[in-house]
Amino acid sequence: MAAFKHKDIIALRDLSKEEIELLISTAENMREVNSRDIKKVPTLRGKTIINLFYESSTRTRTSFEIAGKRLSADTVNITPSSSSATKGETLADTALNLLAMKPDIIVMRHAVSGSHYFLSKKVGCSIINAGDGAHEHPSQGLLDMLTMKDKFGRLDGLKVAIVGDITHSRVARSNIQGLTKMGSSIYLAGPPTMMPPGVERLGNVTVCSMQEAIQDADVVMMLRIQQERQGKTLMPNTREYSRYFGLNPQNIKLAKPDAMIMHPGPINRGVEMSSYVVDGAQSHILKQVENGVAVRMAMLYHVCGGELAE
Amino acid sequence: MAAFKHKDIIALRDLSKEEIELLISTAENMREVNSRDIKKVPTLRGKTIINLFYESSTRTRTSFEIAGKRLSADTVNITPSSSSATKGETLADTALNLLAMKPDIIVMRHAVSGSHYFLSKKVGCSIINAGDGAHEHPSQGLLDMLTMKDKFGRLDGLKVAIVGDITHSRVARSNIQGLTKMGSSIYLAGPPTMMPPGVERLGNVTVCSMQEAIQDADVVMMLRIQQERQGKTLMPNTREYSRYFGLNPQNIKLAKPDAMIMHPGPINRGVEMSSYVVDGAQSHILKQVENGVAVRMAMLYHVCGGELAE
Amino acid sequence: MAAFKHKDIIALRDLSKEEIELLISTAENMREVNSRDIKKVPTLRGKTIINLFYESSTRTRTSFEIAGKRLSADTVNITPSSSSATKGETLADTALNLLAMKPDIIVMRHAVSGSHYFLSKKVGCSIINAGDGAHEHPSQGLLDMLTMKDKFGRLDGLKVAIVGDITHSRVARSNIQGLTKMGSSIYLAGPPTMMPPGVERLGNVTVCSMQEAIQDADVVMMLRIQQERQGKTLMPNTREYSRYFGLNPQNIKLAKPDAMIMHPGPINRGVEMSSYVVDGAQSHILKQVENGVAVRMAMLYHVCGGELAE
Repeated sequence: MAAFKHKDIIALRDLSKEEIELLISTAENMREVNSRDIKKVPTLRGKTIINLFYESSTRTRTSFEIAGKRLSADTVNITPSSSSATKGETLADTALNLLAMKPDIIVMRHAVSGSHYFLSKKVGCSIINAGDGAHEHPSQGLLDMLTMKDKFGRLDGLKVAIVGDITHSRVARSNIQGLTKMGSSIYLAGPPTMMPPGVERLGNVTVCSMQEAIQDADVVMMLRIQQERQGKTLMPNTREYSRYFGLNPQNIKLAKPDAMIMHPGPINRGVEMSSYVVDGAQSHILKQVENGVAVRMAMLYHVCGGELAE
Repeated sequence: MAAFKHKDIIALRDLSKEEIELLISTAENMREVNSRDIKKVPTLRGKTIINLFYESSTRTRTSFEIAGKRLSADTVNITPSSSSATKGETLADTALNLLAMKPDIIVMRHAVSGSHYFLSKKVGCSIINAGDGAHEHPSQGLLDMLTMKDKFGRLDGLKVAIVGDITHSRVARSNIQGLTKMGSSIYLAGPPTMMPPGVERLGNVTVCSMQEAIQDADVVMMLRIQQERQGKTLMPNTREYSRYFGLNPQNIKLAKPDAMIMHPGPINRGVEMSSYVVDGAQSHILKQVENGVAVRMAMLYHVCGGELAE
Repeated sequence: MAAFKHKDIIALRDLSKEEIELLISTAENMREVNSRDIKKVPTLRGKTIINLFYESSTRTRTSFEIAGKRLSADTVNITPSSSSATKGETLADTALNLLAMKPDIIVMRHAVSGSHYFLSKKVGCSIINAGDGAHEHPSQGLLDMLTMKDKFGRLDGLKVAIVGDITHSRVARSNIQGLTKMGSSIYLAGPPTMMPPGVERLGNVTVCSMQEAIQDADVVMMLRIQQERQGKTLMPNTREYSRYFGLNPQNIKLAKPDAMIMHPGPINRGVEMSSYVVDGAQSHILKQVENGVAVRMAMLYHVCGGELAE
């Protein structure tokens, strides 16, 4: 099996197909740890992980924190409200100062795309991107791929529809980068104001209508409408959005009968999807979250370059 | 000794006398751990505890966190300010998402009475109520009972006065539920606007004047005036409240000479009680806090249903 | 070697030269732990450390938290926003309540000078001062001295310039207290409005001009302009401050050729120092941060009075 050669995981764009397969396969092993009665292995004992979240996030921060603790690492949380951000310190100075405390990994979420690459050049420890602006969210892409592989046993040849605000979605970007490498076909749908020009150039990507995207899809991934992020003019109102781009018991019938429904959360029930769909048999949303901890354990493990010390 | 059969601890109303005795007796053992030089046992190693606090609380959250860590569990704190609450996610979705990370216990404080029952039906992990609206605060009730038992060696036959805002007090409700099961007699006093109608129907409970409540009491439990919770019209001002319902060096003489004085904290000095009383020899307020860690260790231990792995 | 006899570390003023040497020498040993692949020793296993930060601080809180975790202690963070501070509880009541949970050490930052002495009299556990108002910041003083000793092999006979807002600087005060005991000569420079009257009485301390202070200095320590702390009238604007009291590639030439440049951080780049100086070869700023973790490990270790249990 290919060794993982990167110090950081900032974007799935930077990883080869083999490296993505390695991370997914390690996550499958980590999932076994999470199903034990004693959910803890000594793998990263004596390692220090700093979770540096400039944007708040229940699930991603908690998922990384639990992942670190189950690997026996020491985890420290830093959020902007309790940080020097209010004292006007630059990201580079904050990072260099944290680095001087000799962490092994900094897991960072930051609103500015590219901030992780900037940081990586400054510091010697590993950087894991927990979401940067509208750029990438690699742990989400990996957990989505693991969840698809759980169901279909493969990623190659799947038709994956991604619906919503593609422009502002780092989730979409990481999935597009990862899935096209793995041989899936991506169909994107969303309001024209939310569709980035030239996105087809990223690989096996088709921009089409909602109906064309869902038609015979293996996977329908609905994106969160990030009401807090976008300007007012992109969308008249959520009711209209829901009518044209929401998933409901009617239009889901266009997809394959056993199609998976996915959403990165948190869900705006009744906007992106009706509750009937969220809680229905085809929904894999909670399986995504469950896989999130395992995937993050795999990421932490591989950037530390270590051996499974058990 | 009766085994503890519940997945959750949401209300003392739901527990039998034997189950309450079991929790108190286990807490006595846990207290021994807390008096050691190395205050740590491996009992809950590899278990994940999420402290989900929708309302802030220094002492309760810290007490549960310390309790979990002394049992070697992994503890993760989530507070509304850093949560998806601001993104409009429902409690059910938050809980289901947390559950997918496979915690063993969620310790939750929430402003809505009944939210823990709602949650318990949704999730398979254990739920411990760290306070829900004006409903119950079972760990407080248990630590209060342990503190009384420390002094009197029994709970049966005690006269317990509870004074203050009974209507808004989850502390009062948990003590009434627990103590009446254990054979204590409860005497409630407070402004008529703060006394819930029909409270006598809960068991051996008498509503009476401040003087009658204190007269010959074994225990005088003063409740916090929660100025942040109630509307303005319930009480003219704190000075008047203090004159009629405050505990002071004069009226405490009505109680038995060795009566215990208790308060769940945080105290409004000079309102519910004079500082003379807070800091006096009869005050058991800090003993309550000390017992809090031991009681919470016992609760965490029993909902995990485990063996003492030492 | 002299044993460390204090329960608390509140101010370097309270420590003897031998005690300061002991702390620095222990920190040198702790630094070796931090350079290992597994950065963890069982020294403080089963001990509970509460980080009680009434003022926010990324680096100090994180540094103490990492220090505690690398010594295997259980660490609990409490910040005012999630505390009973909003419920009007006094510092004494908060502290007594925390103490009842039997922590071994409370690490506190508080805006009021002297609050740690007040607390120490109230509680039996160890108190470590992580900064109190404009009084002292002993861990900063110790890490600064360790960083100087790393370079010069001694502290005796060094000329140390401290430049900036001396009046509001607990960092300056701790360095003055510590360094004069160790035999260094202190030269203070800053705007007259920021220079406390009578500061020369603290020992081998000279108040002089910026040029005199830097001239032939071994160490140039620049203080942070705490724009959030001082009133508007002390300083016309940062540009003017920078012109008269900023360190830049020109005036640093007055110091000895191998002079160390230090800053407690976070830096206002372009105000106290030009970026050229911050990032230059003479800057020891990140070394200070690195030494911070080791110094705090030494402090936690000695107030616990324990043996190195490895």
